[in-house]
Amino acid sequence: MKYGALYGVGVGPGAPDLLTLRAVETLKRADVIALPRGSDYGASMAWRIIEPVVGKRSDQERLFLTFPMSKEPARLRRAWDVAFARIGERLENGRSVAFATEGDPSLYSTFGYLHREAQRRWPGVQVEVIPGVSSVTAVPAVLGAPLADGMERIAIIPANYGVEDLVAILNAFDTTILMKIGSEMPKVVEALERTGLLHKAAYVAKATMPEQKVATDLRAVRTERGDCFAMVVVARRERSGVLAGDVSAQAALSEV
Amino acid sequence: MKYGALYGVGVGPGAPDLLTLRAVETLKRADVIALPRGSDYGASMAWRIIEPVVGKRSDQERLFLTFPMSKEPARLRRAWDVAFARIGERLENGRSVAFATEGDPSLYSTFGYLHREAQRRWPGVQVEVIPGVSSVTAVPAVLGAPLADGMERIAIIPANYGVEDLVAILNAFDTTILMKIGSEMPKVVEALERTGLLHKAAYVAKATMPEQKVATDLRAVRTERGDCFAMVVVARRERSGVLAGDVSAQAALSEV
Repeated sequence: MKYGALYGVGVGPGAPDLLTLRAVETLKRADVIALPRGSDYGASMAWRIIEPVVGKRSDQERLFLTFPMSKEPARLRRAWDVAFARIGERLENGRSVAFATEGDPSLYSTFGYLHREAQRRWPGVQVEVIPGVSSVTAVPAVLGAPLADGMERIAIIPANYGVEDLVAILNAFDTTILMKIGSEMPKVVEALERTGLLHKAAYVAKATMPEQKVATDLRAVRTERGDCFAMVVVARRERSGVLAGDVSAQAALSEV
Repeated sequence: MKYGALYGVGVGPGAPDLLTLRAVETLKRADVIALPRGSDYGASMAWRIIEPVVGKRSDQERLFLTFPMSKEPARLRRAWDVAFARIGERLENGRSVAFATEGDPSLYSTFGYLHREAQRRWPGVQVEVIPGVSSVTAVPAVLGAPLADGMERIAIIPANYGVEDLVAILNAFDTTILMKIGSEMPKVVEALERTGLLHKAAYVAKATMPEQKVATDLRAVRTERGDCFAMVVVARRERSGVLAGDVSAQAALSEV
């Protein structure tokens, strides 16, 4: 069977002009743009990002797919069953489908599962991933402070799956990125206070979107019920600077 | 003093169409495009990436700046002294300077040091960072395999500053990204063999460029003298899949 092509398109962190030329081209060319949203009645963030650049066209379908913000396998499985059926129907008709995903498709993305299942469900289907600007680099751009340089090491932790060992991570890495903060802010702030790193942390929600929120004193957002688009960056900066070049400092981190 | 604005522009991993709309706009508008290169006689990778999109214009200066591929502070300091003088002269004349940097300006970028020094050298200068697609997400896009989803955790290690503790890192994280491989490939392969993770690793050099090289059996590139654009990704994928959702597996990683 000759299927339509499937694209996983990273649409970047939020600002429409952070779309890549390739993302714009791919989204414009696709027969169908698949757009994830959190509820049947809610807006799709991905559509909000691309609409100003791509626009509505009568010859192009916008296929909204609902994925509840949930960690419950049963609820997610029902959502994916619907999504696979609707995407599959279009691919089987030879139509190309561009699945628009916030940030980058390879990093904690809704597209990941679709990508993994595609070959099993539609053998031989052409799948292409268009990388996008991730919030991992959009957040430091907003903060105006590099994530890491030279010998510095980075840990990326999805906070919604537990931060019990955060103190050890903070001590072992130069830069720690906490994604998907969810309801973990109180624990995150506590770990930062225990390690004396509160003044080296910053909180950014909805980076590069109009609703962007930045806090450099995390105590002010301690009770914030962060959403999926909230991130905390902790940068020790004890080894940064290309001219520092003291390789012996490396030893301090070798105990991970 | 009223300085021209300074932009740190991420130009993405290599393919010109992975430039963002904002990067293109900023590069086209700037009075001066500053372009790092590895030697006085070598080409600038950043210029190679942007030339097809931005083009040469008689009313726009291209300022090539040489930064030797070195970890020696003394050599780098000399290069930076020249760069600061040449960029400063232009900013002081009220001209805007867009410093084009491969990948993203916040992640192991030449721009990091310029960013840190800017306020000290040119007080009040407007500095803006334009995030770009990083090789951190371009490489998994090329491989067609997600970096992480759900509860998976990621470590990013600049390999050229030492991989002595790599076994511990590999065991503690779901996904390990080794950047700037340099001459460390033999040690990397050895650590992968010791942890039994060789079959979960992939090597990509110059992702998305015409010279792109991919190896999924790392023994084939064991003696490769990887360059600054080579990366190894190790993804255990023992906890991936949004539908796996077994939070108890988290315990296994809490010993970092």
